[in-house]
Amino acid sequence: MAATASTTSHSLLLQKTPQNHAFLKPNSTTFTLTYQRSPKPFSISCSATTPTQDRPLVQSQPQDRVFNFAAGPATLPENVLLKAQSELYNWHGSGMSVMEMSHRGKDFRSIIEKAEADLRALLNIPEDYAVLFLQGGATTQFAAVPLNLSRPDDTVDYLVTGSWGDKAFKEAQKYCKPKVIWNGKSEKYVRVPSFDGLEQSPNAKYLHICANETIYGVEFKEYPVPSNPNGVLVADMSSNFCSKPVDVTRFGLIYAGAQKNVGPAGVCIVIVRKDLIGNAQEISPVMLDYKIHAENNSLYNTPPCFGIYMCGLVFEDLLKQGGLEEVEKKNKKKAGILYNAIDESKGFYRCPVEKSVRSLMNVPFTLEKPELEAEFLKEADREKMVQLKGHRSVGGMRASIYNAMPLAGVEKLVAFMKDFQARHA
Amino acid sequence: MAATASTTSHSLLLQKTPQNHAFLKPNSTTFTLTYQRSPKPFSISCSATTPTQDRPLVQSQPQDRVFNFAAGPATLPENVLLKAQSELYNWHGSGMSVMEMSHRGKDFRSIIEKAEADLRALLNIPEDYAVLFLQGGATTQFAAVPLNLSRPDDTVDYLVTGSWGDKAFKEAQKYCKPKVIWNGKSEKYVRVPSFDGLEQSPNAKYLHICANETIYGVEFKEYPVPSNPNGVLVADMSSNFCSKPVDVTRFGLIYAGAQKNVGPAGVCIVIVRKDLIGNAQEISPVMLDYKIHAENNSLYNTPPCFGIYMCGLVFEDLLKQGGLEEVEKKNKKKAGILYNAIDESKGFYRCPVEKSVRSLMNVPFTLEKPELEAEFLKEADREKMVQLKGHRSVGGMRASIYNAMPLAGVEKLVAFMKDFQARHA
Repeated sequence: MAATASTTSHSLLLQKTPQNHAFLKPNSTTFTLTYQRSPKPFSISCSATTPTQDRPLVQSQPQDRVFNFAAGPATLPENVLLKAQSELYNWHGSGMSVMEMSHRGKDFRSIIEKAEADLRALLNIPEDYAVLFLQGGATTQFAAVPLNLSRPDDTVDYLVTGSWGDKAFKEAQKYCKPKVIWNGKSEKYVRVPSFDGLEQSPNAKYLHICANETIYGVEFKEYPVPSNPNGVLVADMSSNFCSKPVDVTRFGLIYAGAQKNVGPAGVCIVIVRKDLIGNAQEISPVMLDYKIHAENNSLYNTPPCFGIYMCGLVFEDLLKQGGLEEVEKKNKKKAGILYNAIDESKGFYRCPVEKSVRSLMNVPFTLEKPELEAEFLKEADREKMVQLKGHRSVGGMRASIYNAMPLAGVEKLVAFMKDFQARHA
Repeated sequence: MAATASTTSHSLLLQKTPQNHAFLKPNSTTFTLTYQRSPKPFSISCSATTPTQDRPLVQSQPQDRVFNFAAGPATLPENVLLKAQSELYNWHGSGMSVMEMSHRGKDFRSIIEKAEADLRALLNIPEDYAVLFLQGGATTQFAAVPLNLSRPDDTVDYLVTGSWGDKAFKEAQKYCKPKVIWNGKSEKYVRVPSFDGLEQSPNAKYLHICANETIYGVEFKEYPVPSNPNGVLVADMSSNFCSKPVDVTRFGLIYAGAQKNVGPAGVCIVIVRKDLIGNAQEISPVMLDYKIHAENNSLYNTPPCFGIYMCGLVFEDLLKQGGLEEVEKKNKKKAGILYNAIDESKGFYRCPVEKSVRSLMNVPFTLEKPELEAEFLKEADREKMVQLKGHRSVGGMRASIYNAMPLAGVEKLVAFMKDFQARHA
């Protein structure tokens, strides 16, 4: 079966796609589409076996796709990537890419409005909270939070359970009087303190936490309550955003860089109670003033349109999965088998984090014999499990297993860890 | 010719692609690839005429692609979009999308380093200038420029030739003592003043211009020289960045949102002389401090990776076109035929901008009979020429004809304008 035509085509995908999937192998279907921009003829060749009986679509990794355990940017859902790819050149018949759309046109407005509506549905965000799609990552929010929620003489509290909370505290020193009310650094950030013993500042405008410390793998399972009745809880949720249900009403403000669980880098989502908006310090850059963005529905200046579109596709996918209750179940299962493998390794693998606050998203672990770490990483890489190296500040390994990491990826990692241990114990 | 196979495929593209191109029509090549995620068989049907003689690849618009005259986000080069699409799911055999890559991994480092190297080649950027890939658009730079280049008591000068220059001035008022040394507002922003008559502040740390005012279509063809020998020229080049050669050494700092000429929204490029870095005011958010970004090669926090990748593809494309000299020739030709059509319309169409400073990028024009504007837009839209409506603050029409707008798009617009005039004069 072959055809030639004196035309050009831009369909670059076909050649590799059917070979992408391990579960296709038995049927040995191959296609070739030669791509040429010149006016020369191109050829199509197709060979396909006769249909076999229907087989269930097993959860499997496409053959040339790796399991990516990076801490962020991180793996994205395969179906979201494929949808984005299919729509990239011409979104919904609009005749243009999402990247080319005016942010003030009706097409992009429909995209950002749906993204917000789906996020509101996922997290059950009440109407008295604004949802903002911003730029600059959580690091920009380290400044925006104190600039919007405090005055220069105000006291604010920081509960520091890792590097990110510490960075947030340091940035706040420029804009108000932040106080660290607990710091896990001397214990190498392995736990969250008991909330009862915390000495909060009586007049603190807010209490800041990092809900999941990406580097150390420490995750809040409960949330503290500000002792100042006029204070609010603020959380950096960058690395566990939309990984489980969260009662938004417990917080005055939640912010999250998108590049771990909900999209590509370049989008930062802020969920803020509306009555907290409108008090930015005079020195606040206009781009860090929540009021400006809330009044303009995140369209004061040109937003990161394509990133917001990608987040929207992810939100849609999470809703289709059954919402965050279902997502949390999957995340608990994935994290459970990985932590179990570590704990049952008789010390060959170790996770230093206190069991009650181990992160469902970022699983740091070390080898009893650190000299084996390089070999571990090399072999894992060969098995197409990548980005397992721990953060440079702590060493060891770290498996980030965000929403989009398939169960199969964790199962493969655990099988590999057991095999590696058997060979090197 | 037909084949069936009991497999699934993610190749969503094939079905429409060959029909995308007007120049394919005579050969009537059609393909159908049914996409199914279920394990049901899919079918391929191909029909192709016999090869005809090779025909030159004429510059033509793919049939279902529109000519997008939006001011930004704006049209991107078709070949760049197609390359991005082909690589979206699996970049260069890495097993992942660019959107999933760790920004500290070797793959993304190769992407950002090549993007910077290509931009340096395009603009001939000397080694004593840093190139930064940032977030937050030009609007963030409106604050970052005074925060980095001045102290609170310093005087700085703004030459205001449109809304963007005015916004930049207003933001600077938070951080230093900016002075407007010329303002075109009373004349409705139709010109650039003579530089000889400018009363610059003797000690101004910098002189700020907006090199191309997107809304009003006013473009600097020459650049003023700061009268303070220790002062520098700063330019917002968002809407004419990489549209023509620029002598970077004339400037202390150039900044540009990417979403007009070089990429999607969400990336802002800063080119800054290195000796100007390192003096940010204490109140500057860390994300607005050039020193942080320069020391970390734009990787202090997670950068907008996919946007930077897209910019890199555009830079590569501009180099392949022969660099900015060639690009400028094309832009002059496109703008020339459009302005000629306006000027030769005997007043049916009018462009208010002084001829010597008319923008090669943004061409605003009005109709002698404003009551025809809605009809003009409606008919143009029907002809697949979209986003021609002028900015809400000025009305009328605006055709943004950035680098990626093909000559064919401008020719089609001009033909339409003449036809519209013939029918409505």
